[in-house]
Amino acid sequence: MRALVLDKQTVTLDRERAAPERRSGEAIVRVDLAGICDTDIQLARGYMGYSGVIGHEFVGTVLECDTPSLRGRRVVADINAGCGACDDCLARDGHHCASRSVLGILARDGALAERLAIPERCLVALGDGLADERAVFAEPVAAALHVLDALSLSVPANAIVVGDGKLGLLIALSLRGAGVDTMVIGHHERKLAIARNAGCRAALESSLDEHATRALRAPLTVDATGSSSGLARALSLTAPRGTLVLKSTVAEAVTIDTARLVVDEITVVGSRCGDMTRAVTMLANGRIDPTPLIEARYSLDEGERAFDHARSKGSLKVLVAP
Amino acid sequence: MRALVLDKQTVTLDRERAAPERRSGEAIVRVDLAGICDTDIQLARGYMGYSGVIGHEFVGTVLECDTPSLRGRRVVADINAGCGACDDCLARDGHHCASRSVLGILARDGALAERLAIPERCLVALGDGLADERAVFAEPVAAALHVLDALSLSVPANAIVVGDGKLGLLIALSLRGAGVDTMVIGHHERKLAIARNAGCRAALESSLDEHATRALRAPLTVDATGSSSGLARALSLTAPRGTLVLKSTVAEAVTIDTARLVVDEITVVGSRCGDMTRAVTMLANGRIDPTPLIEARYSLDEGERAFDHARSKGSLKVLVAP
Repeated sequence: MRALVLDKQTVTLDRERAAPERRSGEAIVRVDLAGICDTDIQLARGYMGYSGVIGHEFVGTVLECDTPSLRGRRVVADINAGCGACDDCLARDGHHCASRSVLGILARDGALAERLAIPERCLVALGDGLADERAVFAEPVAAALHVLDALSLSVPANAIVVGDGKLGLLIALSLRGAGVDTMVIGHHERKLAIARNAGCRAALESSLDEHATRALRAPLTVDATGSSSGLARALSLTAPRGTLVLKSTVAEAVTIDTARLVVDEITVVGSRCGDMTRAVTMLANGRIDPTPLIEARYSLDEGERAFDHARSKGSLKVLVAP
Repeated sequence: MRALVLDKQTVTLDRERAAPERRSGEAIVRVDLAGICDTDIQLARGYMGYSGVIGHEFVGTVLECDTPSLRGRRVVADINAGCGACDDCLARDGHHCASRSVLGILARDGALAERLAIPERCLVALGDGLADERAVFAEPVAAALHVLDALSLSVPANAIVVGDGKLGLLIALSLRGAGVDTMVIGHHERKLAIARNAGCRAALESSLDEHATRALRAPLTVDATGSSSGLARALSLTAPRGTLVLKSTVAEAVTIDTARLVVDEITVVGSRCGDMTRAVTMLANGRIDPTPLIEARYSLDEGERAFDHARSKGSLKVLVAP
């Protein structure tokens, strides 16, 4: 089959990649539409030391599986394939299973290919009403909504998302969809306009001096900058006793003002993958419309160009249809 | 009156310091016993830019106040003197009141003096059963127990305290007193023995390689090292989905592995002052016995020597009796 393969920090289209073999409990899924994420770009820079088929955002159709009723269903999937037997897998979602594989990220070939293999229990079947171009956002929307799971209170009064890239915008749209008064701070008027159109507030970084920053301080902030300075910037926007959710994975070490953390008793919490079912629900009922983020669509044959596009500075969501 | 005064990073005994004047709502307290804390030592290095009478750990006797029944009572006090009128003061404890003063730390003369002034509402009156040498630990024990307030679950299965200085030991003894299976990791067999005698587990840093570190990982860790490397060390000992409580204030910037935070969804939370009433209860009922931490007692006349002792490397608690 055709697949976009990462090896030694190079992404190339392999036209003769062996199709995945189904193990017991797994489903083979035909990928109908896939997305490229900033994590894929970090992986290509060496993050996690991953090599293999890249990609973890997809919507597809089940070709083979153990459960007859799933065959032929349109699905998205939780990308964390836990062992299914440890405490984390049994009591929770297996997202922290010590022997997990993760689709396109850790020890499991990913979604920028004609087919993929994933445990059946990871699948979330879709109704007909949810178009592929929305469903393909289920994984990042799940991760975006997972920000709210970092809080002891379920919905904060308001939130600030730092970063107006595709991750920041998707988090802002998701928080807004969940009913949170959300502001995005970034560098690009064009991108901030997407947030405003979705009912968020938005401000250019260049418009905020120290006084304005202090006045904005919110009980929930999200660092979605993908840069090593994002944490400090989000910290400056976090109110005393507030929570700062770290969303972007940065390869380099980051410095932090621990005195501010202690004196203002701020919580910093890392946040990764979320609940796919909640994401699908919010996409299906229209509370979250991610389609303004779509910037380009490519075929898998153009996969290398698609990847180059996705890693060009300032790009929004690039989709790939095998 | 006599008072130990910090000015321009120098601590000197002032024998003719003006006694504090009582404002409405405040009490004048005669200090019977005071303690020197690592925060005092950080202040003397320039942290917070504080100048004035130093010290915030004390037990004393009320000399003057508005409420007649308080006169003559032995007391400890919450050191955060909030405005009493803002949301934080009305709804919570005023620890994050934007216009607060803090005894011996921020805009309010402290406890290493014959007398101090503090709002009456900050006072906690003591029963006769609690000796001065225990009551003087109420403030740091309150701060130590406040570690537990950082958790959504009230009591974790187990905890690791990194650092066997006086702060680390007091946190370990306090967590143990609260029923938490607690391990202390440090560099000093003599200090670890204090933790062991209080029912904690303890290990020398030099005995732990990477494999042992991984095997120890706990759902709750506390950085009480007071060093810039403590956060990273505590992070290495924190289990996925765990909470790392930052207790020590370090003047310099600290680097942190944000990828570990995100992938393992770890919460880092700064923690400062706690509930004095809870601390007094735990000291009075004997669940926490801080007296093994007492290393020396000085009179206020020997205050400069006491301070030098407290900042000598490896020292434990130094008390000062005015």
